[in-house]
Amino acid sequence: MHPRLTLALSVMEAIAILAYAISGFIEARARRLDPIGTFLVAMATAFGGGTVRDILLERRPFYWVEHQPYVIALFVVSFFAPMLLKAASGLFSERVLLVADAIGLGLFSVSGTSLALDAQLPWFTAAMMGVTTGVFGGVIRDVLCNEVPLILRDSRPYATCAFAGCLLYVFLHYIDFDTIYSVLFATLFILLARLITFKFNIRLPH
Amino acid sequence: MHPRLTLALSVMEAIAILAYAISGFIEARARRLDPIGTFLVAMATAFGGGTVRDILLERRPFYWVEHQPYVIALFVVSFFAPMLLKAASGLFSERVLLVADAIGLGLFSVSGTSLALDAQLPWFTAAMMGVTTGVFGGVIRDVLCNEVPLILRDSRPYATCAFAGCLLYVFLHYIDFDTIYSVLFATLFILLARLITFKFNIRLPH
Amino acid sequence: MHPRLTLALSVMEAIAILAYAISGFIEARARRLDPIGTFLVAMATAFGGGTVRDILLERRPFYWVEHQPYVIALFVVSFFAPMLLKAASGLFSERVLLVADAIGLGLFSVSGTSLALDAQLPWFTAAMMGVTTGVFGGVIRDVLCNEVPLILRDSRPYATCAFAGCLLYVFLHYIDFDTIYSVLFATLFILLARLITFKFNIRLPH
Repeated sequence: MHPRLTLALSVMEAIAILAYAISGFIEARARRLDPIGTFLVAMATAFGGGTVRDILLERRPFYWVEHQPYVIALFVVSFFAPMLLKAASGLFSERVLLVADAIGLGLFSVSGTSLALDAQLPWFTAAMMGVTTGVFGGVIRDVLCNEVPLILRDSRPYATCAFAGCLLYVFLHYIDFDTIYSVLFATLFILLARLITFKFNIRLPH
Repeated sequence: MHPRLTLALSVMEAIAILAYAISGFIEARARRLDPIGTFLVAMATAFGGGTVRDILLERRPFYWVEHQPYVIALFVVSFFAPMLLKAASGLFSERVLLVADAIGLGLFSVSGTSLALDAQLPWFTAAMMGVTTGVFGGVIRDVLCNEVPLILRDSRPYATCAFAGCLLYVFLHYIDFDTIYSVLFATLFILLARLITFKFNIRLPH
Repeated sequence: MHPRLTLALSVMEAIAILAYAISGFIEARARRLDPIGTFLVAMATAFGGGTVRDILLERRPFYWVEHQPYVIALFVVSFFAPMLLKAASGLFSERVLLVADAIGLGLFSVSGTSLALDAQLPWFTAAMMGVTTGVFGGVIRDVLCNEVPLILRDSRPYATCAFAGCLLYVFLHYIDFDTIYSVLFATLFILLARLITFKFNIRLPH
């Protein structure tokens, strides 16, 4: 594998985890949670989808067991989250958050699909496992904070974009396209799909 | 095993999954969810109980991994669910739904107990595992839709009927009664118990 | 191991399960649940944290599978819970409940950390697994009853006390201190930390 591609994937991964954790921090601040509650909600948002996927696929060790530094970093940041969110309110404009979250959705969904195909799941089920990986962190965040999960409420296509990208990855997988490029293409597809639906305000029928 | 009995069990299974999925569709319509949200809620309702059971008993592959056509069918139907529910409002009278749901409760609970006994669980725990299989899909549906689970709110015996049927199955299992007939008897017992409690409006004490 | 210590741990364990189950009974009574709903909420509160830990660590059999008598006892008590709570309202003063719950929090958290270290998890992740074991029963109880989990709402240090005790246990583990004494010390530490924060009304910043 080309080292620059590996680097690109690692950077995207860090962005994805950060984006999901930030959405947990924002929800925690809105609820005025204490630092430990903030940490738990951020952890559940960032790693919840991948953990559910690993339980369903019987994969071990969990991502957050292997990458302890990410967990410790989230823990430390949780104590300063309200302060940081305030200081960075200019930096974290809605558009930046949307892009970061879309990268997270794309990377988590596509990597989930890839792992499910490795585990010999049939194609449709593998794509659903990818969507689960991508959206379940947010579902757990909302259930913990006693809200109807955002993906169930929002009429903007979220799981739908993830699902389309996962199907694209399944297709690339079956024509034996290079794995790394497939992950990149499908992730970019999901990112673009999210941005386009926002740009043109596309909504799903109710 | 008598081929007609196998057929009877397969038909009951299809009815059970359909009944649980429909209760998910109805809840999703009440919340005005989009097709993907509808699909997720219907999936969680139909397969949530069995998946929790399989995680607890370490059984793989999951039912919905082995039976991909059911999943694809639910997916397709999710796009037309509100329309279908409207068109079928005459067909899906409350009584039909009650019977279908009771078949689902019976079959899921009894098969869960059977699998737990196969996994060498002690009798009471096996019966509880059966009840979990039967009711947990509905619990997940209600938690996702941000409601107190129906089985906790409703004073009509629901888990209680399932529990009684599971105990009956445990008894038949210990006297070495034929497995298929035991499943049928215990499922019919739960179905009848539900219909009788409705007919005579029997309620549990609070 | 000294037999008196083994006895002390078994007694503390029974107190811990009882304390958690009682908090489930109290919540169930406030919601006017029927006996089966009461039983499910009490079970989830008492064994939910340990079950989630065992799923994450791939440990089997579950505690409640091995200790069926506890489950049957909870089941029987569920039918008389409102009556018993009323009769015992003098006995179960807030102070007694606080101490019992703190013993439960301590013992569950420390034993969870111990099992996670046995499973070769890194130290910080092991401490988090301990906190999860200690607090997740209460989280499930609150999610089932459609409330924001208490540990996310309450500004009194709860998970924080558990986390400090788990870190103490990790430290004792790495200096090869006797396991049983380590469990006792760390559990007592969490108990004392809880009592001190209540005595002096210490709160976490929001």
